[in-house]
This record gives sequence, structure tokens and C-alpha cells, in this order.
Amino acid sequence: MSIVLAFSGGLDTSFCVPYLKETYGEPVYTVTVNTGGITEEDALALEQKSQTLGAAGHYLVEGRYELYDDHLSYLIKGNVLRGGVYPLCVGTERVVQARKTVEIARQLGAKAIAHGSTGAGNDQVRFDVAIRLLGDDLEIITPIRDKGLSRQDTTAFLLERGFEVPSKTTSYSINKGLWGTTVGGAETLGTTDPLPDDAYPDTVAPAESPDAHLDLTLTFENGLPTAIDGVEADAVALIETLNDLGAKYGVGRDIHVGDTILGIKGRVGFEAPAPLILITAHRELEKIVLTKWQRFQKDHLADFYGMLLHEAQHFDPVMRDIEAFIDSSQAVVNGTVSIRLFKGHISILGCDSPHSMFDTGVATYGEHNALWDGRDARGFCQLTGVQGYLALKAGKTEKTSDFGF
Amino acid sequence: MSIVLAFSGGLDTSFCVPYLKETYGEPVYTVTVNTGGITEEDALALEQKSQTLGAAGHYLVEGRYELYDDHLSYLIKGNVLRGGVYPLCVGTERVVQARKTVEIARQLGAKAIAHGSTGAGNDQVRFDVAIRLLGDDLEIITPIRDKGLSRQDTTAFLLERGFEVPSKTTSYSINKGLWGTTVGGAETLGTTDPLPDDAYPDTVAPAESPDAHLDLTLTFENGLPTAIDGVEADAVALIETLNDLGAKYGVGRDIHVGDTILGIKGRVGFEAPAPLILITAHRELEKIVLTKWQRFQKDHLADFYGMLLHEAQHFDPVMRDIEAFIDSSQAVVNGTVSIRLFKGHISILGCDSPHSMFDTGVATYGEHNALWDGRDARGFCQLTGVQGYLALKAGKTEKTSDFGF
Amino acid sequence: MSIVLAFSGGLDTSFCVPYLKETYGEPVYTVTVNTGGITEEDALALEQKSQTLGAAGHYLVEGRYELYDDHLSYLIKGNVLRGGVYPLCVGTERVVQARKTVEIARQLGAKAIAHGSTGAGNDQVRFDVAIRLLGDDLEIITPIRDKGLSRQDTTAFLLERGFEVPSKTTSYSINKGLWGTTVGGAETLGTTDPLPDDAYPDTVAPAESPDAHLDLTLTFENGLPTAIDGVEADAVALIETLNDLGAKYGVGRDIHVGDTILGIKGRVGFEAPAPLILITAHRELEKIVLTKWQRFQKDHLADFYGMLLHEAQHFDPVMRDIEAFIDSSQAVVNGTVSIRLFKGHISILGCDSPHSMFDTGVATYGEHNALWDGRDARGFCQLTGVQGYLALKAGKTEKTSDFGF
Amino acid sequence: MSIVLAFSGGLDTSFCVPYLKETYGEPVYTVTVNTGGITEEDALALEQKSQTLGAAGHYLVEGRYELYDDHLSYLIKGNVLRGGVYPLCVGTERVVQARKTVEIARQLGAKAIAHGSTGAGNDQVRFDVAIRLLGDDLEIITPIRDKGLSRQDTTAFLLERGFEVPSKTTSYSINKGLWGTTVGGAETLGTTDPLPDDAYPDTVAPAESPDAHLDLTLTFENGLPTAIDGVEADAVALIETLNDLGAKYGVGRDIHVGDTILGIKGRVGFEAPAPLILITAHRELEKIVLTKWQRFQKDHLADFYGMLLHEAQHFDPVMRDIEAFIDSSQAVVNGTVSIRLFKGHISILGCDSPHSMFDTGVATYGEHNALWDGRDARGFCQLTGVQGYLALKAGKTEKTSDFGF
Repeated sequence: MSIVLAFSGGLDTSFCVPYLKETYGEPVYTVTVNTGGITEEDALALEQKSQTLGAAGHYLVEGRYELYDDHLSYLIKGNVLRGGVYPLCVGTERVVQARKTVEIARQLGAKAIAHGSTGAGNDQVRFDVAIRLLGDDLEIITPIRDKGLSRQDTTAFLLERGFEVPSKTTSYSINKGLWGTTVGGAETLGTTDPLPDDAYPDTVAPAESPDAHLDLTLTFENGLPTAIDGVEADAVALIETLNDLGAKYGVGRDIHVGDTILGIKGRVGFEAPAPLILITAHRELEKIVLTKWQRFQKDHLADFYGMLLHEAQHFDPVMRDIEAFIDSSQAVVNGTVSIRLFKGHISILGCDSPHSMFDTGVATYGEHNALWDGRDARGFCQLTGVQGYLALKAGKTEKTSDFGF
Repeated sequence: MSIVLAFSGGLDTSFCVPYLKETYGEPVYTVTVNTGGITEEDALALEQKSQTLGAAGHYLVEGRYELYDDHLSYLIKGNVLRGGVYPLCVGTERVVQARKTVEIARQLGAKAIAHGSTGAGNDQVRFDVAIRLLGDDLEIITPIRDKGLSRQDTTAFLLERGFEVPSKTTSYSINKGLWGTTVGGAETLGTTDPLPDDAYPDTVAPAESPDAHLDLTLTFENGLPTAIDGVEADAVALIETLNDLGAKYGVGRDIHVGDTILGIKGRVGFEAPAPLILITAHRELEKIVLTKWQRFQKDHLADFYGMLLHEAQHFDPVMRDIEAFIDSSQAVVNGTVSIRLFKGHISILGCDSPHSMFDTGVATYGEHNALWDGRDARGFCQLTGVQGYLALKAGKTEKTSDFGF
Repeated sequence: MSIVLAFSGGLDTSFCVPYLKETYGEPVYTVTVNTGGITEEDALALEQKSQTLGAAGHYLVEGRYELYDDHLSYLIKGNVLRGGVYPLCVGTERVVQARKTVEIARQLGAKAIAHGSTGAGNDQVRFDVAIRLLGDDLEIITPIRDKGLSRQDTTAFLLERGFEVPSKTTSYSINKGLWGTTVGGAETLGTTDPLPDDAYPDTVAPAESPDAHLDLTLTFENGLPTAIDGVEADAVALIETLNDLGAKYGVGRDIHVGDTILGIKGRVGFEAPAPLILITAHRELEKIVLTKWQRFQKDHLADFYGMLLHEAQHFDPVMRDIEAFIDSSQAVVNGTVSIRLFKGHISILGCDSPHSMFDTGVATYGEHNALWDGRDARGFCQLTGVQGYLALKAGKTEKTSDFGF
Repeated sequence: MSIVLAFSGGLDTSFCVPYLKETYGEPVYTVTVNTGGITEEDALALEQKSQTLGAAGHYLVEGRYELYDDHLSYLIKGNVLRGGVYPLCVGTERVVQARKTVEIARQLGAKAIAHGSTGAGNDQVRFDVAIRLLGDDLEIITPIRDKGLSRQDTTAFLLERGFEVPSKTTSYSINKGLWGTTVGGAETLGTTDPLPDDAYPDTVAPAESPDAHLDLTLTFENGLPTAIDGVEADAVALIETLNDLGAKYGVGRDIHVGDTILGIKGRVGFEAPAPLILITAHRELEKIVLTKWQRFQKDHLADFYGMLLHEAQHFDPVMRDIEAFIDSSQAVVNGTVSIRLFKGHISILGCDSPHSMFDTGVATYGEHNALWDGRDARGFCQLTGVQGYLALKAGKTEKTSDFGF
């Protein structure tokens, strides 16, 4: 009965390989799920590291397409940005990683899944909840959390046994994925200071980005991107392209303070050009094809959806119900959006859709219209004020001032 | 029994002065409410124009402080941006203009209020609803709407009577106010093209803005701005300063498509540096002092509040109830926020508050914490997944795939 | 080019037949859509009345199944009761009536649709909006509203031309349909008094209902009723049966004050045994198969759905999106519910479902459980209070009392 | 350094007295907070039991007025019924009990608070969260939960030491309080069967209640009850009176299935005449004095408020913000409501308010009105359908069926 370890190759999961072998006396298999950001070189290094640490086998699993289909596509359709800025870079990766790791565990007939999470953060919750649901019978082993191990503890353990300790190339803790890269470090332990420009691994600082802008046209079908400047590609490729292009123009770099699942506040820097570009464009396209109530309800539901996703609740069936709402709304979200990237800023140039409600043939705002005349409008004005008028009359008995004048 | 005319000095309201005199045989008084953007020169020109057109008297009324107290302060506290971008530049001005015009009408014992709105747009609704509520017994006269008059019609009427026709200095229709300037024109009759840079009267194009950034620190008390870089000023002065500073850095310029009150879509360019700066900063400060549920409920209520305000429903008592919620939440929104303006982009540098929940003394995300241990965290993870687990078990009977895996 | 009249056989639509013929000089066809409550006798009387009044033809169209499929099924799935009590008896009928009338108008190549609505109520809005959307090119003629005709006016018109005036058999205005009967009259012009028992046409007064209770078991599949006491029938038949049974036990009779579409308040008595029974039972079944977030979001969306339906906005695409959400949630709403009818009251006895999350095998509230232990629970309690604790600490700086103690 | 025990006199808290003394070697003080349902006889018995068990002292603290002011008043103003039926009988009591117990602990300079909760239910969370927030430095001791003790275990412990074991007078577990009595037992371990009539301690079964109805008139000021049939009393007295009256008429007895804080489903019987009567009446009064948007937003916020209160989150500051919203809305909720109690059913007879928007002087639904004419209404109908019309036109390009016809 083996143990399967979700393996990132960092200090904590490196520690886990020999620790689990020693402690449980079982073979340990390592699994790395590529949810973006793993080069071929990285992949090779991970495999070697796993072997060196004594794992019985290593699995590298492709997870980007599943990440897109099950999660990112809904974050685009829902325009999900936590706190108005943060595209949930990490939260959804963990679900895919857990799912894929459970699949390997089942193939191997393993008895347990281990992960390197501490007891302080969000990832433990996401891993635990997903493994419990998908893996049911599988035990969950989390040595760092259970023993309260520090960086010093795990380093000492590895050195004692003659293993190399992964050297940090930067003083910042970085998580790369298809939907963005998060950056944590000294400044994010407080809220007063920004991260230095060089803490961000891939995006160029706005001040150092090109002096000329880049204009792009994005095509959407049923709410999802299908082409850049008319060139079609699969969504994963489009996202990777937009991440590269945006990075050159200093776009998508920001810092966010939010609520962790455990209730404390957390701050994180991130660079996520593709998510910011796609959501900015998608939101604009929706403005010409959705009714006001579609936007209103969808925005509120999507904000809730993002919160539950962040909080490890992807598997609550309410998420499927919200996805059904969102999918229904996207049937008309077809068309193109033109945007400009310049010195860290994304601007909308324009958009068009075969389903545009901005229909100059019937009525144009502030100009002609064939849908009503001045007398109709007067009637509407008269009636749309009735409830306020009655409330004023009724409330006046005692206190006029209640009504704001 | 006189008629009081809400007077902007544009073609339509210029037409109204002689038209109303002729048609109703009553003296016509003009009222201009300064809700921002009226210079002393403008004021003098308005008075002269009113006199020339034959008005019995002209009133210029200060409206900026009332605009701020009754409306803009809540748009800041609520982080209200329609469609994620548009700060409701115009909608609230109309309420203040209507209110002040009613006050003058009552002083004069007038029988009617006239306004120059067409039957196509939002303003007629805002004026009509506010006048009906506040002016009750006052008749509402709207010649442009009622007769369906075109630009040609009103021009001909004025020329026939020997009046000068206001010359347009730009081919764009511009509305300036304290909370921003809106710009309409050829491009906003469709959705495909941006406004040209020179259509915006005050902001510098990002590409032509300074190559060095500007960093600012804003102070907030109970959710409202009180100082820039430590220098206190009243809110109207702060907003005017931020509009000027932001304009130099190309900040706050954007274009928005939204739903008009009458149901059609409308597109509008705008430049609103102060609103964008203030709301970006205020939203950041809230992230460290409000709980997740405060943010969640407040965001949803404020989106609704913005919608009703846009739609002329300021006087519905639900708006007072939402203001009570918002005010309650702002007691802890005290502190400072540092931001950077650069080439059209606003970035957050950091923030601080005496009420910050980001409390390194108790727990820091991803680092130490004194609030729980690993065993507590494991228990939490176990329990926070229970409902999803039961739903999966219960739902499985028929269709596992419903649950997303 | 003929005119098609939505015909109820009441005074106003009776007046319309000769009035339209005279005024427009075109043949008038009458259409009655059976959305419940029309007996064969009624049908025959309607046809004769139409002929007598000079209509060129009369159509009786079955509308109950469409009413159920398109509207009532969602009112059940959504547990929609306006103001907690009123099952939207009338609002949805108008949409079906408008749709069917448009279909007949198109078959006849008519140029216009007429309806007998006044300018005071909800029905005009529902008819107008639906006809405009579905009938596009068809003119809408509404003599009663346009001329502001009173009961006296229309009576005089008919008598002058030698037509019989429909005699009122009751001093109450009654609208019967599949989803309930509404009753208006002297008492509903104010809010202080109840309707007298004999104003309700079909339900027995609770005090006069049987002294023994009636217990029923309802079966639901995907959220919709399929059987009573195990006897399957189509939904229309089930509703008619429940209306009959409930009526005997004094169930479903109530009075409601609500907001009309035009902004004023309106009060209406109603008797709707089937809706009340079905929604009470359906809501109970959902409690054991939906997660708390499903219920929460579904309740809020369904309340909004009911409001828009009431307000003639059935055709806004947001309604399709909400229906998609609701349908998604109902996949597990299968099972049985037992209820008791007694002296006007419906009580829940119990319910059961193959998808019940009330799973005694895993955990039972207040008793044993296999999902966690006491230590897990302590950890959960510790963590679920963290945010409130931090907010208290952070807020305390200035004012402890803000936090309610 | 003593230990203070929240004491109900039941088996578990009786066990705690000698257990805590033995285990910690500290004096144990017992505290019982009267949140309703404790007679003078009960009080005496509790004091004697405490003494017999070896407590160093016993405190009986009045909690009903605080319960009402801090909690029940908002449940009335918010019409809070979980799942449409359950008035949160127990959840708020725990907060008051925890608060009062902390106060005693501080007076005594105690080091710890103990409570008898198991690890399975809601109460542990409510006690723990409240004690942590209010008692900060106080240790929380929960022997039953921590040791996983069963009824057998605690019984044996007491018998071994010669203590009497509280005899159960019923096979149902009953919690009595001002806001209702909950009943659990064999039937509530499943969902299929109702509780037997004799499981409810105070209410008469509907079938055995009087054959004549009882009509009552309730007076509300600012949303809160002040008089029954014109006789004023304080709110606690009014609630006790309504509980007694309602009990005689079989009113307020029901059974509810809901989600426990820990994620599993729980079922509970309850009898709560006063809450059901007050909320039914209050909701009716609101219908004539609040606008539709006030009701809409207030209902949604109050549902959320009830959920957080149920889940031990009373201290989240969002609750204060929602209370501010609710209080703002209640300024006009003044007037009287007449209701009828009969055989377990509460019916509305009528209501009246000085702030009624149901203003026959201006407009009456379906009758005359002075606020608009037929032409206004036609204009309104034309415009209120515009967005749906445009959506249909725009969406049609591809798929008519999307719009439901």
C-alpha cells in the first residue's frame, strides 16, 4: 500500500519524500500536475529530484486543458476578479492537482495521499476538501501541518540524510500557473509597501515597457476566446500568447489583499496578463449583448462563485447551478473586442457582435428612435416615479427629512 | 405665475426662453446650478445669454457641496462604478439641479418648471421624477420632448427671432461636472471605435503624459477623503485637485456602454480622474478593515444603489436604508492609501489603517499564527467539506458527473 | 385586415366587439384562451355571446398545458410566493393569453390585437409587452384605456345598441384560472378588513370544513409533481385535483397586499389550494436534497424571478438564465412528501428522497457521526470565529460598542 | 483560579460539576441564564442541584430582555424564519448565555469557562465563538466533546460518585425559551415521520383546540410590537402572552429540516406561537408601508442575517451593518394588524398605518387614480418592454427559441 505525494519540488514536498518513506515504511510516488508554468526543463528536473529523494516513481500529468475547461472558462464567462483585481490564479489549480493526484493514487492502489501544505494557508483546505470528496477512502497525510514543521526543521531533516536542499533563487515565494503567477515576500507580510519591480518574474515594469502601444482584437464565441487578431487557436494557447504579449507591455501586474479561507487577511502580488486582458474584453462584449438584469444577476452570482471557488467549495452543487446560469447567458456573447495595451494599462477601443442590442436601426441613445415618442416618454417618467412619490406622501406624516431633502 | 427654466445655455434651453415666453405669456426665469465645471467666465456668459434671450431673471446656484454630501460621498463609500468603469458622472447632478430649481421656483411662486430634455434620454426621467416629488404642485413643461423638436427646428426658431445660436466649438457633446466629464459624438453612436484623443477636453492622452510617475497618499476618515499627501482640504477641493492631477497623467479616461433608463443601450466617453483615483484607493483600504461578508454584501448593495441612482430612483426610501448600511460599515474605514499615477494607469502601492485586520501580532498569512494550530486546521478542513461530501454521496445515486468530475 | 380581440366575456371586452367594428370598420374576431376555470358550459356561453355581439368568429384555445410547462412548473420549482403568500395566480395567464391571441392574429392575417384593459392595472402591461414582442408588427388597440371609459360608459354604449349587459352575479370581481382564483371587491379597496367568507367562490371556510383531517402523499420528479397518493397523472390534472381537495378543507385562501407594476399598492383576495399545497411540499423536499447554498441562491433568484414575472418581464433573457439555474438544481429533487390538510392549514408530516442528504449512515444531528471527531469540531469552532475576532480586535481601537456588546 | 460552567441542569452539565472539580482541582461555579422558560420552581431546583453536585456557587441571571433587545427585535423586524418556517428559537439564546457567563467569569476572576456541548451539534460553535470573542483570555473547557463521552459514560460517572442522575420525564429532548421550544426525539432522527402530538409540551394539538376562533389586534411602533388589543406591555410580556394564547389555539407548532453549522442536515420539531404570530403580522404591515425595493432588499438581507445568526456569526460586523439597514427601514412600520387564530392556523384580517402607501386619496388599484392617465400608461407599457424587445431582435439572429417561444 503506497503513498502518493503531490509534488512541487520545493522544500516542503522534497522533505516529504524521505520523511514519508521513513515514517510509514511504504513506497512513495510523486505526482506533479502541470497547470501551467512547467517547462520541459522543469519537468526533467522534477523527475530527477524525485528519484534522488528516493521516490518509487514520478508522474508528470498534463492539467492545463482540464483547468481551462472546468474552471478558467467559467472565470472568463463570469468576469471573476476577487476584490475587483485578483483573477484567482492559484485556487483552481489546487482542485485540478488534487483530482489528478487522486486518479494516480487509484491507479496505484495507494492507501494515502500526502501533500506539503502548512496549517496556515488556503492550500491545505483545497487539497483536503478535494481529496476527501474524490478520494473518499484515501487517507490524507500532511506532515508539515501535523508536526508544525518550520523551514529550519525540514532543511535540517534533509541535510542530516545527505539530500540537497532546494536553493531559493529569489527571496520571493512564487507560484506559476496558466492563470497567473503569484508573488509573496517581505512586503506582502504587511500592507504598506508595494513589491519591488524585480520581484515579478515575467512581466516588464510599466515604466520599462515599449513606448508604442499594442492593439489587439479578440474574438469570442459563447463567451470564450477563440482567436487573437483573427488567428484561431485553442484556449490554452491563446492564454499563453496573451500572457507573453501582456508581459511585454507591463500589463496584469498588481497586488491584492483578501480574506483567506481561515479568516485572516492575506496579501499577494501577482502578474496575470491574460486573465486581465480576457476579462476586460469579455466584460465589454457582454455590455452590448446582455440585458441589464442579466448583467446584474450574473455579476452577483459570479462574485459568489469566485468566493466559493476561492474557499475550496468547487464541489458544492450550487456551483453547477451557477454554471448553468452562466452558460445560459453566454449563448449571445459572440463577437470581437479591440483593446490597447500600453505601459501597464489595458483600454477598450471598441467591440461588435451579431447579437448587439446597440441597434442603430431601431433607436440610438440621444438621437432618433422608432420605439417610442415624446408622449410615451412623458408617460413613462410619470409612472416610474409613482412609488417614490407615494412613499414620500406616506412617510411625510412624521418626518420629511427621511427622504433625503 | 412665472415659469422657471433649468438653464444650461445650450441650444435647447436657449430656445426654451423665448419659446416659453411666447407660448405661455408668462415671465421666464433661468436657473443654472453649478454642480462643477462652471468657471466665473462661464457664469457671466450664462447670465448675459439669459438676459439677451429675454428671461425675467437669472439665478446661478452653488450645488457642488450638496452634490458631494448627498450623492458623491455615497458613491465613494460604495465604490460605485457602473459596468466596472463608469462613475455615474451625470446622473446625480440632475437630482441636485432639479432640487435647486424647485427651491427657486417656490421662492418665486412659479407655476411651472421647464427643462430642455428630449424624449430619448435619461435626463428627462431624472428631472421629471425629482420635480414631481419635490415640486408636487408644479407643472412640468418640456417643449423639446413634447413637440419632438430637432436641432434644426430650434435653430430656425431662434434665428427667425434674431437671436444668436450657440455655436458649437466641438463636434462632441460635452457635459462637465465635479464627478467627471462625459463626451458623446460620432463614435459613441456605434460601439466599434474609440473616441479620438482630442475629443476629451481636459485629460492628457496617456501617450503624451509625463514619463515619470506621480505618487500620492490619500487619507480617509469614515470612508471619505480628507487629505492628499497629508494636506487637508474639504472634499470638493480634494476632488478638484485630483481631477487636475489625474488629468495630467492621462488617468480616468474611458468609454462605457450601458443600459439607459428607457431600455436601449447607450455609449459614452468620459474623463473622471478623481472618481477613479478615489474609488481605487477607497476599495483598497476597505480590504484591510472590512470582513469578507461586509465587502460581499456592501458590493452587492452598492451595485444596486448605483443602478437605482442611474435610473432616477434616488428618492426611493430603500436608498436611505442602503445608505444606513453603508454608513455603518464605514466607521472603521480610516487610514491612508498610497497610489501611483503613470501613463493613464492607477496602481496601488500600499495602505494602512489603525483598524487594520491584517494584524501581524496575531497571525500572518503563510507564516506564524497564534490563533490556531495544525490540528485545528485539519479539523476545519474536515468540516468545511462535509456538505459537499454529503451532496456527492446523496446525488451519486443517479449521476456522478453532475458534480464536476 | 381584421382585429383580434382577447375576449373574457365580461363587460369591457363585450363592449369592445361592437365598438371596434363601428370604429375601425373591420371584422372583429374574439379569442378566449382557457388557462383554467372555463367549463364546457362557460365555453358555449362565450361563443354565443361573441356571436350575438357581432364578432366575425370566435376561437377557444387550450392554454393550460402551455401555462404549466412555461410558467407554473417554474413557480413550483422556485417555490414562488409573492410576499410569502400569493402564488402569482394571474400574471402568467396573461402571457399565455397574449401568445395564443398573437398566434390566432397571425393565422387570420389580422392587423391589430385589442384588449379590454384599463389604464390602471397590471394586465395592460402584461398584454402590451407580450404582444409587442411576439406580434411585432401588430397594432395594439385598447379602447377602455385610451378613452378612459368607465363601467357606466360601456354599459350605456351596449344598451344603446340593444345588447345585453353581462349581469354580475356577485359584487366581487373574480378571475379564475388553473393557478388560483383572485377576488377583488369593496374590502380590497382598503387594507383594514378581510373579505367575507362568501366572497370566495370555491373554497369552504375553514370553520365549515371537515372535522377530520386529510393526509396526502405527493410524489415529485425533478422538482415537479407526478402523483398523489401514488396515483400518477399529468400535472394539469394533479393541480385540478389538489384545487378540489384543498377547497374542501379550507386550504389556500388568503389575502395579499402587493406592489402593482405601475407603482401603487394593490390588495387582492385569492384561493389557490393547489399552489399552496405543492409549494409547501416541494420546499420541504428541497430541504433534504439541496445544500444550504443551493437553497440560499435559489430562493433569492426565485424571488427576483417572481417579481419580474409579475411585472410583465417574462421575456427578458435573464429569466431563461434563472430557469437554467433552477433546472440544474432540480435534478435531485425526487421523492415523496406527506402533508396534512385540516381546517385551512397545511402541515408537513414528513418526506423522503433517494437523494436525501439526511444520511443516518454517516452522521445524525445530535447523535453519532463518522465524519469528524470532537477534536476536529474544536478546530472548526476555533477557526470559524477568526474573522469576527480579528474584526473585534481591529475595530476596538475606537469603539467597542460597535460590535454589539 | 476558578472555572465557570454554563449550567442547564441536564445530564451533561450535571456531570461537568464533579468532573471539572476532580480533573482541574479548582472551584466550579454554575451559571444559568434565563432566556425564557425558567419558572421560579425551576430556578430553585437548579440552585439545589448545583449545590448538591458540589459547585462553589450558583448564579441565575436574567437574560430575556437582552435576548429581546439584541436579537429577537431584529428577528421580528427582519421577518426571519429559517426555511420559511423556523424562528431560530435556540441560536440566539446561546449568544446571550455565553455573554452572561463571560460576565460572571470576569467578576469571579475565573480562568476558564466550561460548557457541556458535544462535538456533534450547533451549540458548541455558538458557545465557543462567543466566548472566544467576549472572553478572549478565558480557556474553554468542553469535557463531553473532548472525551467523546456518551450518555452512558456520564451517567456511570455520576452514579459511581453517588450523585442522582437527572431522570428524563419524556423521551424527547426539549429546549424551552422565550422565542420558542424545540423538540427532538426518535422521529427527528429521520425525515419521514411527524412528531406525535404529545411530544409538544405546551401547545394544544390543532384538532383539540377551540372550535371558535380568536381575533387579535397587534400594535407595532418602528417595527416592534407594543400592544395586544390596545393593551400596552413590554415586549417580553407581549411575547409570553402571545405564546400562551397561541398555544391554546394550536398555533406555531411545526417541524423543520435545516443545515447545521457543521454541514449535516438536522431536523427539529418546535412550538413557537409568539414568533409566528408576530412575524406574520409584521410582514403584513410592511406590505403597506415599504416600497417594493425595500421589501426585496430587506428580505434578502434578513435571510442572510438569519443564516449568519444560526451559524454563530452574530459578531461579524456585517451584522451591525444589516441591522442599520433594517432599523432605517422600520421608521414607517407603525400601525395595527388584525389576525385570527383558529385550529393551528394564523390568518390576516387586515392592517392599517398612518404611513400606508395604500392611499385611496391618490390612486386605488383597478379603480380611479389621479397619478396618471391612459396615455401615460400606454407610454409606460411601450417603454417597459423595450429591453426585452431589443434582446429578442438581437438574439433572434441565431436562435429564436432562446427566448422561450
